[in-house]
Amino acid sequence: MERSVFFISDGTGITAESFGQSLLAQFSGPTFRHHTLPYVDTPEKAVRALTLIKETHLHEVIQPILFMTVLNEEVSKLLHTSGAYIIDLFATFLPGLEMELGSHPLYTVGKKRSTTSSASYHRRIEAVQFALDNDDGARIRHYEKADIIVLGASRSGKTPTCIYLGLQFGIYAANYPITEDDFDKGIKLPDFLRPHKERLFGLTINPARLSGIRNERRPNSRYASVRQCQYEIQMVKQIYNQEQISYIDTTEFSVEEIATRIMDQANLTRRLK
Amino acid sequence: MERSVFFISDGTGITAESFGQSLLAQFSGPTFRHHTLPYVDTPEKAVRALTLIKETHLHEVIQPILFMTVLNEEVSKLLHTSGAYIIDLFATFLPGLEMELGSHPLYTVGKKRSTTSSASYHRRIEAVQFALDNDDGARIRHYEKADIIVLGASRSGKTPTCIYLGLQFGIYAANYPITEDDFDKGIKLPDFLRPHKERLFGLTINPARLSGIRNERRPNSRYASVRQCQYEIQMVKQIYNQEQISYIDTTEFSVEEIATRIMDQANLTRRLK
Repeated sequence: MERSVFFISDGTGITAESFGQSLLAQFSGPTFRHHTLPYVDTPEKAVRALTLIKETHLHEVIQPILFMTVLNEEVSKLLHTSGAYIIDLFATFLPGLEMELGSHPLYTVGKKRSTTSSASYHRRIEAVQFALDNDDGARIRHYEKADIIVLGASRSGKTPTCIYLGLQFGIYAANYPITEDDFDKGIKLPDFLRPHKERLFGLTINPARLSGIRNERRPNSRYASVRQCQYEIQMVKQIYNQEQISYIDTTEFSVEEIATRIMDQANLTRRLK
Repeated sequence: MERSVFFISDGTGITAESFGQSLLAQFSGPTFRHHTLPYVDTPEKAVRALTLIKETHLHEVIQPILFMTVLNEEVSKLLHTSGAYIIDLFATFLPGLEMELGSHPLYTVGKKRSTTSSASYHRRIEAVQFALDNDDGARIRHYEKADIIVLGASRSGKTPTCIYLGLQFGIYAANYPITEDDFDKGIKLPDFLRPHKERLFGLTINPARLSGIRNERRPNSRYASVRQCQYEIQMVKQIYNQEQISYIDTTEFSVEEIATRIMDQANLTRRLK
């Protein structure tokens, strides 16, 4: 039996959703049906959300769960009449924090953004652009501007990781795919990467998983074969070990986790205020 | 005077940070100094974090604030001896949810990922790849596979928005930059976009802001002049209105907000479980 979970916010709903999901993931029994309603910022939209919650309650019999991050007081009051099991993130912590800080909350949505400077905004966009311009070994000449250069076999997760490093942390991340061609002169680090050795970081991945990913792109190719993937992963690991390049295995991690672990292990500090 | 805020997690810390920042943004008075410590998942790391908090307390005199999302019970206990003003997200809500669900929490980190299927992981990576392959009008032939095609003047935020739509929602988002060349035959929608009209979505931006962004890339160029930016923005708006294409002004929004608003206004549903 499924139980409905609503994530409702007068902002993007991203906080309610990501927090709610981590919390629910702690329970292995029930399965949940997710509904995210962002920008519920008027009484009219709140009433529509209420109707949806009540209909779901009627249909599923069991009481829905509601995670809410709502600052608009009218919207908040209405949602509290929904009959759902409510986890109200702002109402729970704002009063205590108000006492602690000795200052009144603004109760206005989307203030988070205004705490980030326009310089941060630029940095972020520029960092994403840097990741794109320096993707897949495209422009070796920009490596001196990179905060980090991510290495790995083709399709081991370099591109989304580099983009995420730019988007979330403002880090300039270039990436270079190590391929068989790099092994022409033996199993060693390509020479042009050597001057940047301090900033190299490696990715590995389970060869069977890699083969699965490559098969989606080029089914039944030599490139996608388990044997080829095993070979390449073994070679890149050998290079990482030889050169003492830090690396992580991406098999079990989401893009966020890979990026955050790189930040941590490579001792990078975020570039966004 | 600044007051230190710690975001500590035995996972990525992204939830603690994003929630803590929205909460603190509700208070306009104090300024905060942020410290994020991810992967504090052993007693040893917890002790190092404790030391840092206590030293900060000593140095700044005022009690630091600590937002924590920690599942490891030993780490959690240690952090509760820090002397900080603590907002403990899991401890606050897990017991109630345990009662409500009638099942015991697992208290294991990083379970969120395992609730997302491997199919979701592929979809996400493929969606980011789609955004890259269909960036800047590169491959018009793939538009039929797009969930949405984002239009806008050069540097108005299309690329990061499309990548974020892929990363966060698994949406296939292509983008097409409308330039002066498109106005050769009058101010109208390029013909090849017409078959995809239902899936078009426009971005606009304040011309002065656009000029600032373009100036970072090509200082003092005609391309970056306020006059040129005003002209292009006026033209794209005219096209959106003519063709009744939904659009949003990106000037005041972060990438997350732009993407979430597009999801909402274009009635897109996420492709990730």
